[in-house]
Amino acid sequence: MPLNPADPDFLSALAARLPKDTLRAPEPRYLEEPRGRATGLAGAIALPRRVQEVSIIVKACNDHGVPLIPFGGGTGLVGGQLSDALPAPLVMSLERMNRVRSVNAQSNVIEVDAGCILADVHAAAEGAGRLFPLSLAAKGSAQIGGNLSTNAGGVNVLRYGNARDLCLGLEAVLPNGDIWQGLSPLRKDNTGYDLRNLLIGAEGTLGVITAASLKLFPQPFAHETALLVVPSPEAALDLLAMAQDMVGEAVSAFELMSRQALDFLAETMPEVRSPFTNHPDWFVLLDFGLSRAQAGNAAMETLFEAALKNGLVSDGFIASSSQQREDFWTLRESIPLANRAIGSISSHDVSLPLDCLPVFIEQGQKLVEGFGGLRLNCFGHLGDGNLHFNAFPQKGRNKSEFSHLSAEIKSAVHDLVAQFGGSFSAEHGVGRLKTGDLLKYADPTKIAAMKAIKAALDPNGIMNPGAVLEV
Amino acid sequence: MPLNPADPDFLSALAARLPKDTLRAPEPRYLEEPRGRATGLAGAIALPRRVQEVSIIVKACNDHGVPLIPFGGGTGLVGGQLSDALPAPLVMSLERMNRVRSVNAQSNVIEVDAGCILADVHAAAEGAGRLFPLSLAAKGSAQIGGNLSTNAGGVNVLRYGNARDLCLGLEAVLPNGDIWQGLSPLRKDNTGYDLRNLLIGAEGTLGVITAASLKLFPQPFAHETALLVVPSPEAALDLLAMAQDMVGEAVSAFELMSRQALDFLAETMPEVRSPFTNHPDWFVLLDFGLSRAQAGNAAMETLFEAALKNGLVSDGFIASSSQQREDFWTLRESIPLANRAIGSISSHDVSLPLDCLPVFIEQGQKLVEGFGGLRLNCFGHLGDGNLHFNAFPQKGRNKSEFSHLSAEIKSAVHDLVAQFGGSFSAEHGVGRLKTGDLLKYADPTKIAAMKAIKAALDPNGIMNPGAVLEV
Repeated sequence: MPLNPADPDFLSALAARLPKDTLRAPEPRYLEEPRGRATGLAGAIALPRRVQEVSIIVKACNDHGVPLIPFGGGTGLVGGQLSDALPAPLVMSLERMNRVRSVNAQSNVIEVDAGCILADVHAAAEGAGRLFPLSLAAKGSAQIGGNLSTNAGGVNVLRYGNARDLCLGLEAVLPNGDIWQGLSPLRKDNTGYDLRNLLIGAEGTLGVITAASLKLFPQPFAHETALLVVPSPEAALDLLAMAQDMVGEAVSAFELMSRQALDFLAETMPEVRSPFTNHPDWFVLLDFGLSRAQAGNAAMETLFEAALKNGLVSDGFIASSSQQREDFWTLRESIPLANRAIGSISSHDVSLPLDCLPVFIEQGQKLVEGFGGLRLNCFGHLGDGNLHFNAFPQKGRNKSEFSHLSAEIKSAVHDLVAQFGGSFSAEHGVGRLKTGDLLKYADPTKIAAMKAIKAALDPNGIMNPGAVLEV
Repeated sequence: MPLNPADPDFLSALAARLPKDTLRAPEPRYLEEPRGRATGLAGAIALPRRVQEVSIIVKACNDHGVPLIPFGGGTGLVGGQLSDALPAPLVMSLERMNRVRSVNAQSNVIEVDAGCILADVHAAAEGAGRLFPLSLAAKGSAQIGGNLSTNAGGVNVLRYGNARDLCLGLEAVLPNGDIWQGLSPLRKDNTGYDLRNLLIGAEGTLGVITAASLKLFPQPFAHETALLVVPSPEAALDLLAMAQDMVGEAVSAFELMSRQALDFLAETMPEVRSPFTNHPDWFVLLDFGLSRAQAGNAAMETLFEAALKNGLVSDGFIASSSQQREDFWTLRESIPLANRAIGSISSHDVSLPLDCLPVFIEQGQKLVEGFGGLRLNCFGHLGDGNLHFNAFPQKGRNKSEFSHLSAEIKSAVHDLVAQFGGSFSAEHGVGRLKTGDLLKYADPTKIAAMKAIKAALDPNGIMNPGAVLEV
């Protein structure tokens, strides 16, 4: 069945079955993405309040072959949330479904609507003396439904896992409009195929997540946070192993940054506090979330001294107040903003086998420099093997001078990643910007299986068409 | 297409395409299951040595509509590995594919053939100074491919997760015979649908897992292990929260046991050492795997004293040697053997929301006692909400006297579990013994989606037909 636009006839018939004001004319915010790399179009925006309304909307789209794009916080970086290549789609935002349904501190479970802002999930968990650890720079506007649909990562994956690992159950509307009641607080449940993990990371192409049960954790008893200067990425990996040997899972975050990040921050966001007078080549943000039995032993200081002694660290700062801890984190979380202010020519969200990281960084740096006139900002979640590896114009030059190179740079970087057995998308997903990469790098048997699953669950191809798999 | 038996014509044509001795006449060990609850039949046993041979076998079965049953260690408890209700199937054992392909201590990854015995995976990890934490009573014969296909649980799920959580990538043969090269050491990879988690827990109905990349962990620096007497399951849950508050993720295992387990052991395995002179109503096995920074602080003793003081614990033993630690674990791991020696009338592998556990145990106990002449052995992984809840005849009476009641008991227990929002299969899977439960208790939208996925990936229905979903 060919796809049809969400035209006035379709919209007025659908509107009649929904509460007043559920359908609205498109506003620009639904048709733009954070880095301005793509624009979308829409016949209308649907703003349901309940899962039953989501079901009615999905069923109508399925019956009439109208493309439906689920929209979370709109913070995705790969164009999964908008398209201008389809007959005018219906864009469905879950922003009105933003209730925390329940928090259970004893069972360590929180149940939330998909439209909950990530920061609000944090606050609700904290209010019950618990931690919801998924955390990323866009937490103030990203919604948990989008986080799950894209299997978001962020800064605490090392200890607590991706969005996938933090989810116990889902409520979702499948492409035929049927509601799957899969919310569950259970830690173990081996009863049939793993529909939950199939929907997580499917980027809205196999259904719409409308609510989730999520794992909570005890709040660490104490935090110790440091910025430590390392001689090389390789030393950083050894430092990580040393830290894990010392405090185990209490290593909550281990983020690599370079001189380039500090230079960009100085250039574009001088208000961001940095403890460095001289910008080091490489440094890490290290966060320990300690248990009661580990706290008060100055574990970070012990690590710092031992690492200084054997040359894994040359200098550093241990946060001496919660304000300073926050400053260290603000520095880390401001890097994507500084990058955006500079304007990247090509950005890459890659992952590598841990033992290949140092060689990849060296070869990747040379590769990017080989294009001439470029600056590389390499930073990210070192403990997960996940680097953001982004190319920018030299100071004083304009990104538009290099735009003809961006496809070639991207392809060269992704080829290098593939040579090391890495991934061209560690945490951002495929969206519409990386569908070509998926076809190029993924195993053909996997692609064939994905297409078979998509055709089985969404035979009319209405759910976010063109995302993940090309139409 | 109707299924056809693996008859002499089919087998001789297939044998001609495989190395000599790949196909053999069925031996009884492939046609029995551990508790003697089901028997199977087979046209032949296939014993491939390489993934390419697996592919040839699967493709031949698919082309000729011959049912294929993948066979791991044969330790599954729900009949997923054998059937007598099909045209004589080909049973494929992966026991010859039992190589540890590589161990990478720096990246914390091990790559193994699916036929590796779980205990051999442990040994290979340990040889590299690492831990592979999946552990269960059948570890000496269970194979990792079967562990993954059934998403096995065991005693360390609380800290490290299920088989699912420990797997980074798979090599598998899909029902059409195509090989999916999905082995990967990557911690993060958001490139398309989660085929890995779809195959894990599918019990061989969507393909055959032939190899896996698995997560390794640092060995804990030290262990502290205790058997602590608790006044009730509710107190046990409070004790768990107290332990996690004290040492965080270092609580590796938290196993609940009762007087009944000790009585059964005394009755059937008097050689198993127990520290108890009087059998307590309830007690827990608590294991801390401590990091360097936590060790040497007598964390278990501190917990014991604090818990004694506020009445969560009334007595107990902290292991004072590695021999005693092993004895405590032997006691726990002998329970399933003692159960088998007594002979259960109906056994249940259930999970409950944590906060419902105490009430469920109370009501479930009354329910089972209501049938008259029965003994209940309730034990399991309390921290995961997973109980093994098994009914036995009173001493001196024979299980056969009660066999007419077993379906009724099972149904009553599972109904009670469902009332609390629990699961009728926490870690054993569905197999062939629980397909009726799946239809009765699972969400209909989920069942419909499962059937659509099965039909899409295995249109001829050759992969382990009748397991998970009824034919």
